Amino acid sequence: MPTIKLLMTGDELLIGDIIDTNSSYIAKSLFDIGIKVSEKVTIGDHQSILVEKISQLSQSADVLIINGGLGPTEDDLTSLALANCMQEQLAEHTKAIAHLKSWAEKKRMALTPSNLKQAQLPESADIIANAIGSAVGIYVKLNDCHVFCTPGVPSELKVMIEDEIKPKLAELFSSHKKVHVKKYLTFGIGESTAQEMLLPLTKTLPDSISLGYRAAMPLLELKLLSPQKHESLNKISQQIETLFDDHIIAKDYKDATSISDVVVNLLREKQVKIACVESCTGGLIASMITSVSGSSEIFESGYVTYSNQAKTDMVGVKEETLIAHGAVSEQVVKEMVTGALERSDADVAVAVSGIAGPNGGTKEKPVGTVCVAWGDNDEIQSTTFIISGNRQYFQTMVAARALDLIRRKIANSEYSPAYMKSR
Amino acid sequence: MPTIKLLMTGDELLIGDIIDTNSSYIAKSLFDIGIKVSEKVTIGDHQSILVEKISQLSQSADVLIINGGLGPTEDDLTSLALANCMQEQLAEHTKAIAHLKSWAEKKRMALTPSNLKQAQLPESADIIANAIGSAVGIYVKLNDCHVFCTPGVPSELKVMIEDEIKPKLAELFSSHKKVHVKKYLTFGIGESTAQEMLLPLTKTLPDSISLGYRAAMPLLELKLLSPQKHESLNKISQQIETLFDDHIIAKDYKDATSISDVVVNLLREKQVKIACVESCTGGLIASMITSVSGSSEIFESGYVTYSNQAKTDMVGVKEETLIAHGAVSEQVVKEMVTGALERSDADVAVAVSGIAGPNGGTKEKPVGTVCVAWGDNDEIQSTTFIISGNRQYFQTMVAARALDLIRRKIANSEYSPAYMKSR
Repeated sequence: MPTIKLLMTGDELLIGDIIDTNSSYIAKSLFDIGIKVSEKVTIGDHQSILVEKISQLSQSADVLIINGGLGPTEDDLTSLALANCMQEQLAEHTKAIAHLKSWAEKKRMALTPSNLKQAQLPESADIIANAIGSAVGIYVKLNDCHVFCTPGVPSELKVMIEDEIKPKLAELFSSHKKVHVKKYLTFGIGESTAQEMLLPLTKTLPDSISLGYRAAMPLLELKLLSPQKHESLNKISQQIETLFDDHIIAKDYKDATSISDVVVNLLREKQVKIACVESCTGGLIASMITSVSGSSEIFESGYVTYSNQAKTDMVGVKEETLIAHGAVSEQVVKEMVTGALERSDADVAVAVSGIAGPNGGTKEKPVGTVCVAWGDNDEIQSTTFIISGNRQYFQTMVAARALDLIRRKIANSEYSPAYMKSR
Repeated sequence: MPTIKLLMTGDELLIGDIIDTNSSYIAKSLFDIGIKVSEKVTIGDHQSILVEKISQLSQSADVLIINGGLGPTEDDLTSLALANCMQEQLAEHTKAIAHLKSWAEKKRMALTPSNLKQAQLPESADIIANAIGSAVGIYVKLNDCHVFCTPGVPSELKVMIEDEIKPKLAELFSSHKKVHVKKYLTFGIGESTAQEMLLPLTKTLPDSISLGYRAAMPLLELKLLSPQKHESLNKISQQIETLFDDHIIAKDYKDATSISDVVVNLLREKQVKIACVESCTGGLIASMITSVSGSSEIFESGYVTYSNQAKTDMVGVKEETLIAHGAVSEQVVKEMVTGALERSDADVAVAVSGIAGPNGGTKEKPVGTVCVAWGDNDEIQSTTFIISGNRQYFQTMVAARALDLIRRKIANSEYSPAYMKSR
């Protein structure tokens, strides 16, 4: 496997003004063809540091992708630094001039002297086409390393990676095989518990297969990686599926997915309509559902009943129940579910009431206490959790568990979730 | 100025699975106290590479902040690598054990053997408190460099940086002068327009004062930086205040703030209660309000009226109005506001109805069309916007504008927002 390193340049990356999405894009895109980035270095716009890092990284990698610094302004230094490393002069490249002219024509603008600076490249460089912007990419061979310089503008970078650099890398390293990946998105089992459950399995894992974890609060992703189609890959993935059972909410998905994606897809598939009644999550559950495109098929109405009065007025919770048991009680959330089912077209409903904090806790019901009820006209279930953490964590976790309980109901999961046993 | 470098660890950062927001957070947070990161290196979870990089970076920096690899799983290698660099053994630290015990108690769970691994630290290390999670931070001095190891979970990292590491750095480099900063959080003016508005001012800026922008969707932050108390700083900040007027929603705030923080604080200050009726934002406005602690004082109820039926049932929108003007119309959103004011204790209400997409657009009302109404029992105003972008962008922007319109109403802003002129 070739060693690939990235050099990201730009002062703005070092003062936290922007979040670097380019390097993840490059890494993910190359990983899809089985090429894994082994190191990424980020530096500011300083000529001497640029020269030092280009030279250092080109000595320890087969491929170096440099991002940024190809623009027309004075702090765009990549071409000059590269020439310096190669002990070459900058020269005006005819192909680059032609590109700039056609770009300016499309934009109906005149080329400025600073634009023309973008055609000044190391003498022996090849240009890499930029289908969108003014900055051409640069390709050189330095210290036996293939160096690709790419533009910092994300849209320009993407097209250059997909259309120019990936095909070139595939050609250069054609003997290299694609990595096989099995992915599982799980909910309800924490990272350390997951690790223990998988310990017997990881201990006997063949050397060439690796198992990775990624905490994507509130979810945990498990990933099996194998450089070739290993015969035990299927057996191992079956073991994982048995262990995690219905804590697996998605597998072998293509794009990033969320618990709301999973629940909305399931509700659409089963043609079940949902309503939610929220106190402590204040609309978060409804907003997670409606963030998914196509949710209007299965979502009609949501009730954010923050005060006691709202619980009575909007979904008919009885005053006696509120007085006898308090707003944070299983009796009240059950009446919230009943009220929503009566008042809407929904087939199932979920309701939550709890103490998000930081204030409002009592000795009996501390901050973090939350009651959840969910069900349909046949059966309404309820439970109580204590979820500690700050307000944001509490709200996110309550919403995720509420959605997971609905997922389990719709999918007829018999197995009860780990988070209900440990409460 | 001390030389600060960052070492970000984790395979997931090199295969593009997650976007690294931690390093920007660290950079930004330290930059606020005048400390600038000079290099950032990202590597995977490999013991030997970790050891090599820690040793290399600690030789060229005064401060090294390592992020990630403190968790309980097998691919968490930071502590071991650090011990290796220091030629020390790992030892069980009593303080770390005490922290883990109290963490487990709060979570009402038992400590697992993998949790206990988190107390195995280099013999001479000091621990850094983690107010939220199980992983304690590690502090050591290596090659005359102050090394801080921090957890990869963003919320844990933030608290550790703010409460532990920043004060420590301030103490270590006390001779280093604090940068004077003036910050403005603005809403409603885009980055390029803002740049143009500020061009005459930036052209005449003294050399020692710099003006920065940070797009924090949907907000834009402006930052004036000066290494010492410059006499023109006040004059320049007044010019900015005149230019941006009531598009400035907060100034000289201490922590990160949001439009919902600003609106909730204002409503609490003026003792005004709010209700919201949401169609296309599906609960997002309510959830933004209730994400702010103390919002129960000013928020009672929210209506998520996704379907036409729900608009009629929940807030009494007339069927005739729906038929005559369609669900996405100023007439309908006005009736939604009236209905919410009638049905709740709220003093003001805001309602939105629009086409979030990707489907559901027509020639007359394309995807991105949204009607907003807001007001009290005396006056209800309404307007229509077209907001292009994907579903998530649309929902975020609609919710932010709805909250901004409420902010302007409560604050009695006469000046009309830029986003209403340009529609």
